[in-house]
Amino acid sequence: MSNRAESVLVGLIGEGVMPSLTPPMHEREADVQGLRLLYRPIDLLELALPAAAVGDLLTAAQHMGFNGLNITHPCKQLVMKHLDEISDDAARLGAVNTVLIQDGRYIGHNTDFSGFGSALADGLPDAHLDRVVQLGAGGAGSAVAYALLKAGVKELDLVDMDANRAAERAAELGELFPEASVTPHTPNELAQLMPRTDGLVHCTPIGMAAHPGLPLDIELLEPRHWVADIVYRPIDTQLVREARAKGCAVLDGGRMAVGQAADAFQLITGRVADRERMRAHFLELIAQEEAAASLNGGTLAKAAR
Amino acid sequence: MSNRAESVLVGLIGEGVMPSLTPPMHEREADVQGLRLLYRPIDLLELALPAAAVGDLLTAAQHMGFNGLNITHPCKQLVMKHLDEISDDAARLGAVNTVLIQDGRYIGHNTDFSGFGSALADGLPDAHLDRVVQLGAGGAGSAVAYALLKAGVKELDLVDMDANRAAERAAELGELFPEASVTPHTPNELAQLMPRTDGLVHCTPIGMAAHPGLPLDIELLEPRHWVADIVYRPIDTQLVREARAKGCAVLDGGRMAVGQAADAFQLITGRVADRERMRAHFLELIAQEEAAASLNGGTLAKAAR
Repeated sequence: MSNRAESVLVGLIGEGVMPSLTPPMHEREADVQGLRLLYRPIDLLELALPAAAVGDLLTAAQHMGFNGLNITHPCKQLVMKHLDEISDDAARLGAVNTVLIQDGRYIGHNTDFSGFGSALADGLPDAHLDRVVQLGAGGAGSAVAYALLKAGVKELDLVDMDANRAAERAAELGELFPEASVTPHTPNELAQLMPRTDGLVHCTPIGMAAHPGLPLDIELLEPRHWVADIVYRPIDTQLVREARAKGCAVLDGGRMAVGQAADAFQLITGRVADRERMRAHFLELIAQEEAAASLNGGTLAKAAR
Repeated sequence: MSNRAESVLVGLIGEGVMPSLTPPMHEREADVQGLRLLYRPIDLLELALPAAAVGDLLTAAQHMGFNGLNITHPCKQLVMKHLDEISDDAARLGAVNTVLIQDGRYIGHNTDFSGFGSALADGLPDAHLDRVVQLGAGGAGSAVAYALLKAGVKELDLVDMDANRAAERAAELGELFPEASVTPHTPNELAQLMPRTDGLVHCTPIGMAAHPGLPLDIELLEPRHWVADIVYRPIDTQLVREARAKGCAVLDGGRMAVGQAADAFQLITGRVADRERMRAHFLELIAQEEAAASLNGGTLAKAAR
């Protein structure tokens, strides 16, 4: 006679999560499937809680009947010590963005990497993956690099302004994927790297409304390159637009955003999400935001966090 | 861009609350109104938490984005010291069964008394209220007595097996309603009380599936009496059936259950609940339970808690 089995309660823990599109994406997909689902953003900044509160918030979520949580910056590593079980991929990657709450136990997963992996397979099914240049080796970059190596990339050139960060990440990933070659680089090497790469993946904040511009000299792009961006506010970044104009096959950042949400939806609800339907809804939400922002100035820059 | 305004998250804190019908009543009414609402039972017994944990659970609810809570046994008094504001009626009654969470503040209300009050007005609109005999002076009985006195009862005879409890409650209520006369009695006085009363309200567990029987000698009931029961599992208690057979106007316990739920729905969602629609749904749920119980024996007795 419990209602728990018939409805799903989800939360997103992190800083600045109020504008996240993941809650409405989950809710809309559940509506179409006839499932009662409510998804709450739980914003550490609004609650004036430190990142280390994530353990207490897990307990609160369990007590209050949550079925699952998404976890984002700055808690993806911090959450790990509070979990009872962690998927192999999330453990190897060292980051958890999805926690299932089942019979009082916490089970960690990572759908950032799997979301990028499915985005790549869906959006660029014909992409050559022998050699890839990746710009940005931060948190999102780690998940993307992990997905690229799982997808079979043989040589991954990891480019970051911070040479130490690039070197550390390359070493970590090289240990996880000994059959691949992962090498660290700084942006001034791009002129040497681009002529011999199959594709380019962009994982820095450049191109977001608050950080406009291009992350590399656009002259380095050739029509034979495929280009994947993970920035999705705006959905058509300058990189996406200029790459498309050059004739490159392009994957916009929305695919990864939808991919991580679809994978989390499946883990939490046990139901298959319709990715094309979720993407259509996502594009609708982004278009609404962009229309609202063009009406009243600075909003998009704020929402872009 | 928050989703909070567009959806409502509610919980019920107490012991043994999993079979409560309040969650599905709220969810169904919200569905009909096109409002996304999810209502979670939060069972102290299942969570192995003491009643004193109610303060921590309020904090958890606030952090996790709950809009409101219902509070039941054994926390209706304990919760009060954790609240920022309490309605006049709840403060006078000394019990809170509904907490609104607004801008991080906790506001207490009591819809047990108001629910019985509206049930009485809806279900027995012509009842004479000069003199009423009430059986049972426990927690639910206090709320019912408060509602009766607010509805204008001039003489309330409070009958309880526990003479001290009857005396204490009568004294408290007498202070709150100095214009009325509230007198304590034990059940052996019923033969003297019934001939001069307008109606009888029953607030003990007798008649529940786990406590079958009649709470008084049925010969004391006259057709001119109205009879209100607050037991609703089963909906037609032996008292309700025998009173109806005698020709008494009867109020079943479902009216109060629906009344408290409808009032809490309105407080938490800010929307008017359709009480007749909620009652129809409630009767449907009870009929389902009773059908299931008659199929497999002991379930009804369990659910009756």
